[in-house]
Amino acid sequence: MPEQITLYGSYISPFSHMVNIALLESKADFNRFEIDLRNKPDFFVREINPVGKVPVIAYGGPIVPLDRPSPESVKLTESRVLLDFIADLFPDAGLLPKDPVLRAKAHFFIDVVQTKLIPAWRGYFAEGKPSESLLTALEEVQALLPPSGYAIGEWSIADASIVPILARMDVVIELDHPFCGWREGEARSVLDTIHGPRFARLRQFYLHLAERPVFQATFDKDIIKETFKGVFDFRLQLRQSASK
Amino acid sequence: MPEQITLYGSYISPFSHMVNIALLESKADFNRFEIDLRNKPDFFVREINPVGKVPVIAYGGPIVPLDRPSPESVKLTESRVLLDFIADLFPDAGLLPKDPVLRAKAHFFIDVVQTKLIPAWRGYFAEGKPSESLLTALEEVQALLPPSGYAIGEWSIADASIVPILARMDVVIELDHPFCGWREGEARSVLDTIHGPRFARLRQFYLHLAERPVFQATFDKDIIKETFKGVFDFRLQLRQSASK
Ligand SMILES: N[C@@H](CCC(=O)N[C@@H](CS)C(=O)NCC(=O)O)C(=O)O
Ligand SMILES: N[C@@H](CCC(=O)N[C@@H](CS)C(=O)NCC(=O)O)C(=O)O
Repeated sequence: MPEQITLYGSYISPFSHMVNIALLESKADFNRFEIDLRNKPDFFVREINPVGKVPVIAYGGPIVPLDRPSPESVKLTESRVLLDFIADLFPDAGLLPKDPVLRAKAHFFIDVVQTKLIPAWRGYFAEGKPSESLLTALEEVQALLPPSGYAIGEWSIADASIVPILARMDVVIELDHPFCGWREGEARSVLDTIHGPRFARLRQFYLHLAERPVFQATFDKDIIKETFKGVFDFRLQLRQSASK
Repeated sequence: MPEQITLYGSYISPFSHMVNIALLESKADFNRFEIDLRNKPDFFVREINPVGKVPVIAYGGPIVPLDRPSPESVKLTESRVLLDFIADLFPDAGLLPKDPVLRAKAHFFIDVVQTKLIPAWRGYFAEGKPSESLLTALEEVQALLPPSGYAIGEWSIADASIVPILARMDVVIELDHPFCGWREGEARSVLDTIHGPRFARLRQFYLHLAERPVFQATFDKDIIKETFKGVFDFRLQLRQSASK
Protein backbone atom coordinates (compact mmCIF):
# COMPACT_ATOMS: atom_id res chain seq x y z
CA MET A 1 0.00 0.00 0.00
CA PRO A 2 1.60 3.30 -1.01
CA GLU A 3 1.89 5.94 1.73
CA GLN A 4 0.65 9.53 1.48
CA ILE A 5 1.72 11.39 -1.66
CA THR A 6 1.81 15.17 -2.01
CA LEU A 7 2.80 16.86 -5.24
CA TYR A 8 4.17 20.39 -4.93
CA GLY A 9 3.90 21.81 -8.43
CA SER A 10 3.02 24.83 -10.55
CA TYR A 11 0.31 24.85 -13.18
CA ILE A 12 2.58 26.61 -15.67
CA SER A 13 5.53 24.22 -15.21
CA PRO A 14 5.80 21.47 -17.83
CA PHE A 15 7.83 19.33 -15.43
CA SER A 16 5.11 19.54 -12.79
CA HIS A 17 2.53 18.78 -15.46
CA MET A 18 4.34 15.55 -16.42
CA VAL A 19 4.19 14.31 -12.86
CA ASN A 20 0.61 15.43 -12.32
CA ILE A 21 -0.44 13.50 -15.43
CA ALA A 22 1.34 10.34 -14.28
CA LEU A 23 -0.28 10.53 -10.84
CA LEU A 24 -3.75 11.05 -12.27
CA GLU A 25 -3.31 8.32 -14.89
CA SER A 26 -2.19 5.94 -12.13
CA LYS A 27 -5.41 6.75 -10.22
CA ALA A 28 -3.27 7.40 -7.16
CA ASP A 29 -4.81 9.04 -4.15
CA PHE A 30 -2.69 12.19 -3.73
CA ASN A 31 -2.66 15.83 -2.66
CA ARG A 32 -1.49 18.69 -4.79
CA PHE A 33 -0.20 22.05 -3.59
CA GLU A 34 0.19 24.90 -6.07
CA ILE A 35 3.47 26.80 -5.74
CA ASP A 36 3.53 30.33 -7.10
CA LEU A 37 7.01 30.43 -8.63
CA ARG A 38 7.17 34.21 -8.49
CA ASN A 39 6.27 34.25 -4.85
CA LYS A 40 7.36 30.98 -3.31
CA PRO A 41 6.11 30.32 0.20
CA ASP A 42 8.90 30.21 2.78
CA PHE A 43 8.07 26.70 3.90
CA PHE A 44 8.65 25.41 0.36
CA VAL A 45 12.29 26.44 0.09
CA ARG A 46 12.95 25.77 3.77
CA GLU A 47 11.34 22.37 4.14
CA ILE A 48 10.55 20.94 0.72
CA ASN A 49 13.22 21.90 -1.78
CA PRO A 50 16.18 24.13 -0.93
CA VAL A 51 16.82 24.47 -4.67
CA GLY A 52 13.39 26.09 -4.97
CA LYS A 53 12.20 24.11 -7.99
CA VAL A 54 9.04 22.22 -8.74
CA PRO A 55 7.96 19.46 -9.04
CA VAL A 56 8.60 17.79 -5.69
CA ILE A 57 6.82 14.76 -4.28
CA ALA A 58 6.68 14.50 -0.49
CA TYR A 59 6.09 10.84 0.21
CA GLY A 60 5.11 9.09 3.43
CA GLY A 61 5.34 10.44 6.98
CA PRO A 62 2.35 11.54 9.01
CA ILE A 63 -0.72 13.29 7.56
CA VAL A 64 -0.09 17.03 7.95
CA PRO A 65 -1.37 20.32 6.51
CA LEU A 66 0.26 20.69 3.08
CA ASP A 67 1.90 23.97 4.03
CA ARG A 68 3.40 22.44 7.17
CA PRO A 69 5.22 19.45 5.72
CA SER A 70 6.65 16.84 8.02
CA PRO A 71 10.42 16.27 8.16
CA GLU A 72 9.51 12.59 8.14
CA SER A 73 8.26 12.53 4.56
CA VAL A 74 10.84 11.81 1.85
CA LYS A 75 11.22 14.71 -0.58
CA LEU A 76 11.85 13.54 -4.15
CA THR A 77 12.68 15.73 -7.16
CA GLU A 78 13.47 15.58 -10.90
CA SER A 79 10.51 14.92 -13.15
CA ARG A 80 12.01 11.87 -14.86
CA VAL A 81 12.88 10.30 -11.53
CA LEU A 82 9.34 11.00 -10.31
CA LEU A 83 7.76 9.42 -13.40
CA ASP A 84 9.57 6.18 -12.65
CA PHE A 85 8.78 6.49 -8.97
CA ILE A 86 5.06 6.64 -9.72
CA ALA A 87 5.34 3.71 -12.13
CA ASP A 88 7.15 1.77 -9.39
CA LEU A 89 4.54 2.66 -6.75
CA PHE A 90 1.69 1.53 -9.01
CA PRO A 91 3.12 -1.35 -11.02
CA ASP A 92 -0.29 -2.45 -12.27
CA ALA A 93 -1.56 0.95 -13.37
CA GLY A 94 -0.10 0.64 -16.87
CA LEU A 95 2.40 3.50 -16.64
CA LEU A 96 5.23 1.31 -17.87
CA PRO A 97 4.94 -2.11 -19.53
CA LYS A 98 6.53 -5.12 -17.82
CA ASP A 99 8.65 -6.06 -20.82
CA PRO A 100 12.27 -4.86 -20.32
CA VAL A 101 12.73 -3.90 -23.99
CA LEU A 102 9.57 -1.76 -24.01
CA ARG A 103 10.62 -0.19 -20.73
CA ALA A 104 14.02 0.64 -22.24
CA LYS A 105 12.24 2.21 -25.23
CA ALA A 106 10.14 4.35 -22.89
CA HIS A 107 13.24 5.39 -20.96
CA PHE A 108 15.10 6.20 -24.15
CA PHE A 109 12.19 8.32 -25.35
CA ILE A 110 12.16 10.23 -22.04
CA ASP A 111 15.92 10.72 -22.36
CA VAL A 112 15.54 12.28 -25.82
CA VAL A 113 12.79 14.58 -24.52
CA GLN A 114 14.85 15.67 -21.53
CA THR A 115 18.28 15.97 -23.10
CA LYS A 116 17.37 17.12 -26.62
CA LEU A 117 13.82 18.41 -27.05
CA ILE A 118 13.60 20.45 -23.86
CA PRO A 119 16.99 22.20 -24.24
CA ALA A 120 16.19 22.92 -27.91
CA TRP A 121 12.76 24.30 -27.01
CA ARG A 122 14.18 26.47 -24.24
CA GLY A 123 16.94 27.64 -26.58
CA TYR A 124 14.32 28.69 -29.10
CA PHE A 125 11.83 30.56 -26.95
CA ALA A 126 14.07 31.89 -24.19
CA GLU A 127 17.63 32.18 -25.52
CA GLY A 128 17.25 33.63 -28.99
CA LYS A 129 18.48 30.49 -30.78
CA PRO A 130 17.30 29.89 -34.35
CA SER A 131 14.41 27.48 -34.96
CA GLU A 132 16.57 24.85 -36.69
CA SER A 133 17.71 23.10 -33.49
CA LEU A 134 14.12 22.89 -32.30
CA LEU A 135 12.94 21.43 -35.60
CA THR A 136 15.82 18.94 -35.59
CA ALA A 137 14.92 17.81 -32.08
CA LEU A 138 11.27 17.46 -33.09
CA GLU A 139 12.32 15.34 -36.04
CA GLU A 140 14.38 13.14 -33.77
CA VAL A 141 11.35 12.63 -31.54
CA GLN A 142 9.07 12.00 -34.50
CA ALA A 143 11.46 9.36 -35.84
CA LEU A 144 11.06 7.41 -32.60
CA LEU A 145 7.28 7.16 -32.93
CA PRO A 146 5.66 3.97 -34.14
CA PRO A 147 3.36 4.38 -37.19
CA SER A 148 0.36 4.82 -34.91
CA GLY A 149 -0.47 4.97 -31.22
CA TYR A 150 1.52 6.38 -28.35
CA ALA A 151 5.28 6.78 -27.90
CA ILE A 152 5.96 3.09 -27.38
CA GLY A 153 2.58 1.75 -28.52
CA GLU A 154 0.44 1.68 -25.38
CA TRP A 155 0.24 4.84 -23.26
CA SER A 156 3.20 5.17 -20.82
CA ILE A 157 5.21 7.69 -18.85
CA ALA A 158 7.06 8.42 -22.11
CA ASP A 159 3.86 10.16 -23.25
CA ALA A 160 3.53 11.98 -19.94
CA SER A 161 7.07 13.30 -20.45
CA ILE A 162 6.33 14.99 -23.78
CA VAL A 163 2.74 16.17 -23.93
CA PRO A 164 3.30 19.14 -21.55
CA ILE A 165 6.09 20.37 -23.83
CA LEU A 166 4.20 19.97 -27.11
CA ALA A 167 1.14 21.67 -25.63
CA ARG A 168 3.15 24.65 -24.35
CA MET A 169 5.01 24.95 -27.66
CA ASP A 170 1.81 25.76 -29.55
CA VAL A 171 0.70 28.26 -26.92
CA VAL A 172 4.01 30.10 -26.64
CA ILE A 173 4.59 30.31 -30.38
CA GLU A 174 1.04 31.60 -30.91
CA LEU A 175 1.63 34.14 -28.17
CA ASP A 176 4.59 35.51 -30.17
CA HIS A 177 5.71 37.64 -27.25
CA PRO A 178 8.46 40.27 -27.65
CA PHE A 179 10.44 38.45 -24.93
CA CYS A 180 11.08 35.66 -27.45
CA GLY A 181 12.60 38.19 -29.84
CA TRP A 182 11.30 36.60 -33.05
CA ARG A 183 11.34 38.63 -36.22
CA GLU A 184 8.04 39.56 -37.91
CA GLY A 185 6.30 36.51 -39.38
CA GLU A 186 8.67 34.00 -37.80
CA ALA A 187 6.19 32.57 -35.28
CA ARG A 188 3.59 32.07 -38.02
CA SER A 189 6.10 30.29 -40.22
CA VAL A 190 7.35 27.98 -37.45
CA LEU A 191 3.77 27.19 -36.47
CA ASP A 192 2.96 26.34 -40.10
CA THR A 193 5.97 24.03 -40.23
CA ILE A 194 5.06 22.28 -37.00
CA HIS A 195 1.47 21.83 -38.13
CA GLY A 196 2.41 20.97 -41.72
CA PRO A 197 3.31 17.79 -43.62
CA ARG A 198 6.89 17.59 -42.31
CA PHE A 199 5.54 16.91 -38.82
CA ALA A 200 2.32 15.12 -39.73
CA ARG A 201 3.00 12.08 -37.56
CA LEU A 202 4.12 14.15 -34.58
CA ARG A 203 1.00 16.31 -34.87
CA GLN A 204 -1.29 13.28 -35.03
CA PHE A 205 0.52 11.86 -31.99
CA TYR A 206 0.05 15.11 -30.08
CA LEU A 207 -3.63 15.41 -30.95
CA HIS A 208 -4.12 11.81 -29.85
CA LEU A 209 -2.41 12.55 -26.53
CA ALA A 210 -4.41 15.74 -26.09
CA GLU A 211 -7.66 13.76 -26.25
CA ARG A 212 -6.93 12.00 -23.00
CA PRO A 213 -9.21 13.17 -20.18
CA VAL A 214 -6.30 13.53 -17.78
CA PHE A 215 -4.57 15.91 -20.16
CA GLN A 216 -7.72 17.94 -20.63
CA ALA A 217 -8.29 18.13 -16.89
CA THR A 218 -4.78 19.50 -16.35
CA PHE A 219 -4.34 21.90 -19.26
CA ASP A 220 -6.38 25.03 -19.81
CA LYS A 221 -4.97 26.80 -22.82
CA ASP A 222 -6.21 30.23 -21.81
CA ILE A 223 -4.78 30.05 -18.31
CA ILE A 224 -1.44 28.81 -19.63
CA LYS A 225 -1.36 31.58 -22.23
CA GLU A 226 -2.18 34.26 -19.64
CA THR A 227 0.45 32.92 -17.27
CA PHE A 228 3.15 32.80 -19.94
CA LYS A 229 2.25 36.34 -20.92
CA GLY A 230 2.73 37.45 -17.31
CA VAL A 231 6.06 35.61 -17.00
CA PHE A 232 7.34 37.00 -20.30
CA ASP A 233 6.24 40.58 -19.50
CA PHE A 234 8.14 40.26 -16.25
CA ARG A 235 11.27 38.75 -17.76
CA LEU A 236 11.31 41.31 -20.54
CA GLN A 237 11.20 44.10 -17.98
CA LEU A 238 14.04 42.46 -16.05
CA ARG A 239 16.08 42.18 -19.20
CA GLN A 240 15.41 45.77 -20.18
CA SER A 241 16.29 47.14 -16.77
CA ALA A 242 19.46 44.97 -16.73
CA SER A 243 20.60 46.44 -20.04
CA LYS A 244 20.08 50.03 -18.92
CA MET B 1 14.57 -16.17 -19.63
CA PRO B 2 16.52 -13.23 -21.10
CA GLU B 3 17.53 -13.57 -24.74
CA GLN B 4 21.05 -13.13 -26.12
CA ILE B 5 22.85 -9.99 -24.95
CA THR B 6 25.81 -8.42 -26.76
CA LEU B 7 27.55 -5.33 -25.43
CA TYR B 8 29.40 -3.22 -27.98
CA GLY B 9 31.72 -1.07 -25.92
CA SER B 10 35.18 0.44 -25.60
CA TYR B 11 37.52 -0.22 -22.73
CA ILE B 12 38.36 3.48 -22.41
CA SER B 13 34.73 4.67 -22.39
CA PRO B 14 33.28 5.34 -18.94
CA PHE B 15 29.74 4.87 -20.30
CA SER B 16 30.64 1.43 -21.64
CA HIS B 17 32.32 0.62 -18.35
CA MET B 18 29.12 1.41 -16.40
CA VAL B 19 27.15 -1.05 -18.49
CA ASN B 20 29.86 -3.70 -18.42
CA ILE B 21 29.91 -3.51 -14.62
CA ALA B 22 26.13 -3.86 -14.37
CA LEU B 23 26.13 -6.87 -16.68
CA LEU B 24 28.92 -8.60 -14.77
CA GLU B 25 27.37 -7.80 -11.37
CA SER B 26 24.07 -9.25 -12.61
CA LYS B 27 25.91 -12.46 -13.56
CA ALA B 28 24.26 -12.23 -16.97
CA ASP B 29 25.46 -14.48 -19.74
CA PHE B 30 26.58 -11.98 -22.41
CA ASN B 31 29.02 -11.27 -25.22
CA ARG B 32 31.23 -8.25 -25.45
CA PHE B 33 32.71 -6.73 -28.58
CA GLU B 34 35.45 -4.11 -28.30
CA ILE B 35 34.97 -1.11 -30.58
CA ASP B 36 38.07 0.88 -31.43
CA LEU B 37 36.66 4.42 -31.35
CA ARG B 38 39.44 5.78 -33.53
CA ASN B 39 38.86 3.14 -36.15
CA LYS B 40 35.26 2.01 -35.94
CA PRO B 41 34.38 -1.06 -37.95
CA ASP B 42 31.91 -0.34 -40.78
CA PHE B 43 29.34 -2.77 -39.51
CA PHE B 44 29.12 -0.88 -36.22
CA VAL B 45 27.96 2.43 -37.68
CA ARG B 46 25.93 0.73 -40.42
CA GLU B 47 24.11 -1.89 -38.38
CA ILE B 48 24.51 -1.16 -34.69
CA ASN B 49 24.52 2.57 -34.05
CA PRO B 50 24.33 5.17 -36.84
CA VAL B 51 25.38 7.79 -34.26
CA GLY B 52 28.64 5.86 -33.85
CA LYS B 53 28.70 5.89 -30.06
CA VAL B 54 29.25 3.20 -27.46
CA PRO B 55 27.82 1.57 -25.42
CA VAL B 56 25.16 -0.32 -27.35
CA ILE B 57 23.40 -3.49 -26.28
CA ALA B 58 22.10 -5.72 -29.07
CA TYR B 59 19.40 -7.81 -27.47
CA GLY B 60 17.61 -10.88 -28.77
CA GLY B 61 17.44 -12.16 -32.34
CA PRO B 62 19.35 -15.18 -33.62
CA ILE B 63 22.85 -16.17 -32.48
CA VAL B 64 25.25 -14.58 -34.98
CA PRO B 65 28.94 -13.66 -35.23
CA LEU B 66 29.37 -10.43 -33.24
CA ASP B 67 30.68 -8.54 -36.25
CA ARG B 68 27.71 -9.61 -38.36
CA PRO B 69 24.82 -8.45 -36.18
CA SER B 70 21.30 -9.51 -37.02
CA PRO B 71 18.70 -6.88 -37.97
CA GLU B 72 16.39 -8.85 -35.69
CA SER B 73 18.14 -7.90 -32.48
CA VAL B 74 16.98 -4.71 -30.75
CA LYS B 75 19.74 -2.10 -30.49
CA LEU B 76 19.59 -0.12 -27.27
CA THR B 77 21.73 2.91 -26.34
CA GLU B 78 22.31 5.46 -23.57
CA SER B 79 24.16 4.18 -20.54
CA ARG B 80 21.51 5.21 -18.00
CA VAL B 81 18.79 3.52 -20.05
CA LEU B 82 20.94 0.40 -20.29
CA LEU B 83 21.56 0.30 -16.54
CA ASP B 84 17.81 0.17 -15.94
CA PHE B 85 17.37 -2.32 -18.75
CA ILE B 86 19.80 -4.73 -17.10
CA ALA B 87 18.14 -4.22 -13.72
CA ASP B 88 14.77 -4.99 -15.38
CA LEU B 89 16.13 -8.09 -17.13
CA PHE B 90 17.54 -9.47 -13.88
CA PRO B 91 15.15 -8.27 -11.19
CA ASP B 92 16.61 -10.61 -8.58
CA ALA B 93 20.27 -9.82 -9.15
CA GLY B 94 20.29 -6.93 -6.68
CA LEU B 95 21.01 -4.14 -9.17
CA LEU B 96 18.11 -2.06 -7.87
CA PRO B 97 16.15 -2.57 -4.64
CA LYS B 98 12.43 -3.33 -4.87
CA ASP B 99 11.43 -0.39 -2.66
CA PRO B 100 10.16 2.54 -4.81
CA VAL B 101 11.78 5.19 -2.59
CA LEU B 102 15.19 3.52 -2.75
CA ARG B 103 14.80 3.11 -6.51
CA ALA B 104 14.01 6.83 -6.79
CA LYS B 105 17.13 7.61 -4.75
CA ALA B 106 19.24 5.47 -7.08
CA HIS B 107 17.71 7.18 -10.13
CA PHE B 108 18.26 10.61 -8.62
CA PHE B 109 21.90 9.74 -7.92
CA ILE B 110 22.36 8.60 -11.53
CA ASP B 111 20.74 11.83 -12.70
CA VAL B 112 23.22 13.93 -10.71
CA VAL B 113 26.13 11.92 -12.12
CA GLN B 114 24.89 12.26 -15.70
CA THR B 115 23.68 15.85 -15.67
CA LYS B 116 26.15 17.45 -13.26
CA LEU B 117 29.27 15.40 -12.52
CA ILE B 118 29.98 14.22 -16.06
CA PRO B 119 29.53 17.64 -17.74
CA ALA B 120 31.67 19.24 -15.01
CA TRP B 121 34.37 16.61 -15.40
CA ARG B 122 34.39 16.96 -19.19
CA GLY B 123 34.48 20.74 -18.82
CA TYR B 124 37.52 20.44 -16.61
CA PHE B 125 39.70 18.01 -18.53
CA ALA B 126 38.60 18.73 -22.11
CA GLU B 127 37.26 22.27 -22.30
CA GLY B 128 39.65 24.34 -20.24
CA LYS B 129 37.10 25.17 -17.53
CA PRO B 130 38.40 25.98 -14.03
CA SER B 131 38.36 23.24 -11.39
CA GLU B 132 35.64 24.93 -9.27
CA SER B 133 32.68 23.47 -11.18
CA LEU B 134 34.16 20.00 -10.91
CA LEU B 135 34.73 20.36 -7.17
CA THR B 136 31.19 21.72 -6.71
CA ALA B 137 29.74 18.75 -8.57
CA LEU B 138 31.84 16.35 -6.49
CA GLU B 139 30.53 18.02 -3.35
CA GLU B 140 26.98 17.61 -4.57
CA VAL B 141 27.59 13.91 -5.13
CA GLN B 142 29.31 13.54 -1.77
CA ALA B 143 26.35 15.19 -0.02
CA LEU B 144 24.07 12.45 -1.38
CA LEU B 145 26.10 9.64 0.16
CA PRO B 146 24.93 7.93 3.33
CA PRO B 147 27.48 7.95 6.20
CA SER B 148 28.79 4.56 5.12
CA GLY B 149 28.23 1.99 2.39
CA TYR B 150 27.31 2.47 -1.23
CA ALA B 151 25.38 5.26 -2.95
CA ILE B 152 22.01 4.22 -1.59
CA GLY B 153 23.20 1.76 1.07
CA GLU B 154 23.39 -1.58 -0.72
CA TRP B 155 25.28 -1.79 -4.01
CA SER B 156 23.13 -0.71 -7.01
CA ILE B 157 23.34 0.66 -10.55
CA ALA B 158 23.86 4.08 -8.95
CA ASP B 159 27.33 2.84 -8.01
CA ALA B 160 27.91 1.43 -11.48
CA SER B 161 27.11 4.89 -12.86
CA ILE B 162 29.83 6.69 -10.94
CA VAL B 163 32.81 4.42 -10.36
CA PRO B 164 34.03 4.61 -14.00
CA ILE B 165 34.11 8.40 -13.72
CA LEU B 166 35.88 8.57 -10.36
CA ALA B 167 38.45 6.02 -11.50
CA ARG B 168 39.23 7.91 -14.72
CA MET B 169 39.41 11.22 -12.85
CA ASP B 170 42.42 10.05 -10.84
CA VAL B 171 44.16 8.66 -13.90
CA VAL B 172 43.62 11.69 -16.13
CA ILE B 173 44.61 14.21 -13.49
CA GLU B 174 47.75 12.21 -12.68
CA LEU B 175 48.55 12.06 -16.38
CA ASP B 176 48.54 15.90 -16.45
CA HIS B 177 48.64 15.91 -20.26
CA PRO B 178 49.27 19.15 -22.19
CA PHE B 179 45.90 18.59 -23.95
CA CYS B 180 44.18 19.48 -20.67
CA GLY B 181 46.02 22.80 -20.61
CA TRP B 182 46.51 22.96 -16.85
CA ARG B 183 49.02 25.40 -15.45
CA GLU B 184 52.11 24.10 -13.63
CA GLY B 185 51.18 22.50 -10.30
CA GLU B 186 47.43 22.61 -10.91
CA ALA B 187 46.94 18.86 -11.37
CA ARG B 188 48.88 18.17 -8.15
CA SER B 189 46.78 20.66 -6.23
CA VAL B 190 43.44 19.33 -7.53
CA LEU B 191 44.55 15.76 -6.78
CA ASP B 192 45.49 16.81 -3.23
CA THR B 193 42.05 18.40 -2.80
CA ILE B 194 40.22 15.35 -4.11
CA HIS B 195 42.24 13.03 -1.87
CA GLY B 196 42.16 15.39 1.11
CA PRO B 197 39.81 16.02 4.05
CA ARG B 198 37.22 17.97 2.02
CA PHE B 199 36.38 14.83 0.07
CA ALA B 200 37.10 12.22 2.74
CA ARG B 201 33.71 10.53 2.45
CA LEU B 202 33.76 10.50 -1.35
CA ARG B 203 37.24 9.01 -1.31
CA GLN B 204 36.25 6.30 1.15
CA PHE B 205 33.21 5.56 -1.03
CA TYR B 206 35.39 5.29 -4.13
CA LEU B 207 37.94 3.02 -2.47
CA HIS B 208 35.11 0.81 -1.25
CA LEU B 209 33.69 0.60 -4.79
CA ALA B 210 37.12 -0.07 -6.23
CA GLU B 211 37.48 -3.15 -4.04
CA ARG B 212 34.71 -4.96 -5.88
CA PRO B 213 36.04 -7.83 -8.00
CA VAL B 214 33.94 -6.75 -11.00
CA PHE B 215 35.54 -3.31 -10.94
CA GLN B 216 39.01 -4.79 -10.67
CA ALA B 217 38.33 -7.17 -13.55
CA THR B 218 37.25 -4.28 -15.79
CA PHE B 219 39.74 -1.54 -14.93
CA ASP B 220 43.46 -1.74 -15.57
CA LYS B 221 44.94 1.59 -14.58
CA ASP B 222 47.98 1.24 -16.83
CA ILE B 223 45.95 0.41 -19.92
CA ILE B 224 43.54 3.27 -19.25
CA LYS B 225 46.43 5.68 -18.74
CA GLU B 226 48.15 4.58 -21.96
CA THR B 227 44.90 4.88 -23.91
CA PHE B 228 44.12 8.34 -22.58
CA LYS B 229 47.65 9.39 -23.44
CA GLY B 230 47.12 8.21 -27.01
CA VAL B 231 43.74 9.95 -27.29
CA PHE B 232 45.10 13.20 -25.84
CA ASP B 233 48.23 13.15 -28.06
CA PHE B 234 45.92 12.76 -31.04
CA ARG B 235 43.45 15.47 -29.98
CA LEU B 236 46.27 17.88 -29.19
CA GLN B 237 47.67 17.37 -32.69
CA LEU B 238 44.21 17.94 -34.18
CA ARG B 239 43.80 21.10 -32.18
CA GLN B 240 47.24 22.35 -33.15
CA SER B 241 46.73 21.69 -36.84
CA ALA B 242 43.28 23.34 -36.66
CA SER B 243 44.79 26.50 -35.20
CA LYS B 244 47.49 26.72 -37.87
N1 LIG C 1 15.16 19.13 -14.06
C1 LIG C 1 14.00 19.55 -13.28
C2 LIG C 1 13.57 20.92 -13.74
C3 LIG C 1 12.57 21.57 -12.83
C4 LIG C 1 12.40 23.05 -13.17
O1 LIG C 1 13.22 23.64 -13.89
N2 LIG C 1 11.33 23.66 -12.65
C5 LIG C 1 11.08 25.07 -12.87
C6 LIG C 1 9.65 25.31 -13.37
S1 LIG C 1 9.37 24.64 -14.98
C7 LIG C 1 11.17 25.80 -11.55
O2 LIG C 1 10.71 25.31 -10.53
N3 LIG C 1 11.74 27.01 -11.54
C8 LIG C 1 11.68 27.84 -10.39
C9 LIG C 1 12.94 28.53 -10.09
O3 LIG C 1 13.96 28.14 -10.64
O4 LIG C 1 12.89 29.46 -9.28
C10 LIG C 1 12.89 18.51 -13.47
O5 LIG C 1 12.92 17.81 -14.49
O6 LIG C 1 12.03 18.36 -12.58
N1 LIG D 1 25.09 9.67 -23.51
C1 LIG D 1 25.79 8.52 -24.00
C2 LIG D 1 27.23 8.91 -24.24
C3 LIG D 1 28.02 7.87 -25.00
C4 LIG D 1 29.36 8.44 -25.47
O1 LIG D 1 29.58 9.64 -25.47
N2 LIG D 1 30.27 7.55 -25.89
C5 LIG D 1 31.56 7.97 -26.38
C6 LIG D 1 32.69 7.23 -25.70
S1 LIG D 1 32.82 7.62 -24.00
C7 LIG D 1 31.67 7.58 -27.85
O2 LIG D 1 31.24 6.51 -28.26
N3 LIG D 1 32.26 8.43 -28.67
C8 LIG D 1 32.58 8.05 -30.01
C9 LIG D 1 32.33 9.10 -31.00
O3 LIG D 1 31.63 10.07 -30.68
O4 LIG D 1 32.83 8.94 -32.12
C10 LIG D 1 25.69 7.41 -22.96
O5 LIG D 1 25.44 7.72 -21.79
O6 LIG D 1 25.78 6.21 -23.32
